[in-house]
Amino acid sequence: MSEEFNLIDRYFLPLSQNLSADEVGIGDDGAVLTPPENHQLVVVTDTLVAGVHFPLETSAYDVAWKALAVNLSDLAAMGAIPGSFTLALTLPENDPAWLESFSLGLAELSRLYRISLVGGDTTKGPLTVTVTANGWVEKGRAILRSGADEGDLICASGCLGDAGLGLKVAMRTFEGNQQACLSKADMESCLEALNRPKPQLDLGRQLTDFASAAIDVSDGLLADLGHILEKSSAKTGRVLGAELYLDQVPISEAMRKWIDETGDWSLPLSAGDDYQLCFTVREKDWEALSTRLVGLQMDVKPIGRIQSVQGVQIKETEGGEVLSDVLSIINGYQHF
Amino acid sequence: MSEEFNLIDRYFLPLSQNLSADEVGIGDDGAVLTPPENHQLVVVTDTLVAGVHFPLETSAYDVAWKALAVNLSDLAAMGAIPGSFTLALTLPENDPAWLESFSLGLAELSRLYRISLVGGDTTKGPLTVTVTANGWVEKGRAILRSGADEGDLICASGCLGDAGLGLKVAMRTFEGNQQACLSKADMESCLEALNRPKPQLDLGRQLTDFASAAIDVSDGLLADLGHILEKSSAKTGRVLGAELYLDQVPISEAMRKWIDETGDWSLPLSAGDDYQLCFTVREKDWEALSTRLVGLQMDVKPIGRIQSVQGVQIKETEGGEVLSDVLSIINGYQHF
Repeated sequence: MSEEFNLIDRYFLPLSQNLSADEVGIGDDGAVLTPPENHQLVVVTDTLVAGVHFPLETSAYDVAWKALAVNLSDLAAMGAIPGSFTLALTLPENDPAWLESFSLGLAELSRLYRISLVGGDTTKGPLTVTVTANGWVEKGRAILRSGADEGDLICASGCLGDAGLGLKVAMRTFEGNQQACLSKADMESCLEALNRPKPQLDLGRQLTDFASAAIDVSDGLLADLGHILEKSSAKTGRVLGAELYLDQVPISEAMRKWIDETGDWSLPLSAGDDYQLCFTVREKDWEALSTRLVGLQMDVKPIGRIQSVQGVQIKETEGGEVLSDVLSIINGYQHF
Repeated sequence: MSEEFNLIDRYFLPLSQNLSADEVGIGDDGAVLTPPENHQLVVVTDTLVAGVHFPLETSAYDVAWKALAVNLSDLAAMGAIPGSFTLALTLPENDPAWLESFSLGLAELSRLYRISLVGGDTTKGPLTVTVTANGWVEKGRAILRSGADEGDLICASGCLGDAGLGLKVAMRTFEGNQQACLSKADMESCLEALNRPKPQLDLGRQLTDFASAAIDVSDGLLADLGHILEKSSAKTGRVLGAELYLDQVPISEAMRKWIDETGDWSLPLSAGDDYQLCFTVREKDWEALSTRLVGLQMDVKPIGRIQSVQGVQIKETEGGEVLSDVLSIINGYQHF
C-alpha cells in the first residue's frame, strides 16, 4: 500500500504526540517510551471486525473511535493512565477518503485521552482493526477482576443498554412498532452510545483507591459481572455469586421508555458494548468512595451485592423477591 | 469462537510464563507488568497476512514462529530485552489441529527468548496474525535508525538472501534448471531461513554499547540501509549515502552456489525477510566491538561505509570500482 504513504505520514504521524525528548514514536523499528517512576505497565488489546463487532455501515470515523475506545475502556477497568497505542489496520481497498475520516476519529479520541500512536501496520484484506494499548498504574494498584468478596457492593456506571438499543436502531431490528416509544433524540443518543463509547478513565483512576474488583462492560453486565465472580471465586477458593436490584441499574430515559414499552430488561443486563465500568467495593469503603465521586459529579450507585450463593439473583428492589436466576451470557468472540 | 475456549486455555495460557508475583498475565482486562529499574519501554508491532507475508502452504507452527520472530527482530534492532507480547489472530475456520500446531510454534519461540504472552484476541476471517511486543532497554540506550554519520562502518549479520532463496524453493519459481546448483540440504536450510528466522537478540544487546544506528533486515539490505540513511540524513541535516563491498556481504554456501550459477546478487541485497541486523558503528569503536563479538563467537564484519554522497554505491571490493548505483527498494506493504 505504498500509495498510502503520504496519507499515513500526513494523518497518522501527528498522532505520535505528547512524547518527551527522550522518547521515540513512529518511524523506527520500535517506539521508545519512558515509564513514570514507581508505576507498572498495563497492556490491553482488542480486535474489531467489520460486520461482527460493528455494523458494516459504520463510518470510518466511528470505527476508529470505537477501536481505540474499547481499549481505553480496558485501561479504565484496570485503573490505568493511558500511555501509547499501536494500530494494525487491515483494509479491503486503498480509499483515501475513508482513511482520512478514520485518522480524524483516531486523532480526536487520542487527543481527548492523551494517548500517543507509536506504531502500526496496514495490510490488505477485510476491514479489521486491532489496537494494542499501554497504560501505567501505580505499583500494586491495578484493579483486577479477582478481588471481590462476600458482602462487597456491586456498582455500575451508566447508562447501560443504550449501545444495544443503538444497535437495534442501526440494524433496524425492531419488531412491529416497538420503536414508536423512542423519540428521534432517543435514537440518536443510543446510536452515539453504540458508535462513540466514552471510556471511563476518570472513574477508573478514582477506583484504584477503593475498588476491590473491576471490569468494563463490553459483553453485557451479567456476563462481565460473571467474569468478576469467576475470578474472585477462584482467588478466594469460595463460591461467590451476586444479587442485583433492577431498580438501581443505571439506565437512560430512552431505555426507561423501551422497558416500559417492552418489559424487556435484556438490553441493560446483557447487550454489552456500553464500555461502562462494573466494579465492587467493600461496604466499609463505600462512603468514602461515594463522597469522592459526588464531588467529581460522577453518578455511580450500588446496584447489588456479592454473596456466597452461586449465580446471579435478580430482584426488583433490594430486599425484594428473586425474579429469576440468570446465567452469564458470553458473546460470540473469544477474549483472553 | 467459543468452541476454541478450551484450546486457548490449554495452549495459550501456558505461554503467560516468567511473570513475577506482582505481575498479571492473560485473564483480566489487561496485563500488569513491572518495568525493570532505569529502563525504557520498547514497543513493536507487525502484521503477517497469509499469501502476502508468507506462502499459503506455510505450516501453522511456522506461521506462529515467524509472526513472533519478526517482532523479536524489531526488538533486537532496538537493542531491547524481550518482555511480553499480545496476539491478534484472525482465522478462517475453527481448526483445532491448526491451532494446536500454531500454539506449539509460539510456545517454542517464546520459551527460547523468554517472552510472555499476556493477552490477545481471536476473530474469524482470512488468516492474519498481528503480534505487538514489548521489550526493555536501559534508559537512553535504545539503538535508533538515525544515528549513523559519515565514515561509520556498515555491518550486517549473516547470512543474507537465504530467506529469499527459500521463497523460491517454497514457491517453485526457479527458471529453467537453476535449482540444480543447490543440494537438498541447501534448499532445506533456505526454507528454514524463510520459515524460522532467528531474531538476533543477543547481537542487538551487544550493540547498545557500540552501534550508532541499527535496523533489522526485513525489506532487504538495500531498502533497510536506505532507512538508516534517510533517518540519519534527516537527523544530521546532511546528505548521507553508503558504499557496500560485495565480497564482504555475508552469504551462505547455498547463496554462493546460487550467485556462481546465476550471477545474480539481488537476493542478498534486496530480497529481505532474513531478520538479520544491519548496523553502523564509528570506526574508532569497531575494534572494541569486534573483540567483544569474536569472544561471543558472533561473526560480524564490516560490509561498507557511510559516506557523504547520496545513494548506495556497490563495489566488488573495498577500494574497487563502483559497479552500479542502486536505489532503495521498498516492499509492497506499508510499515510505519
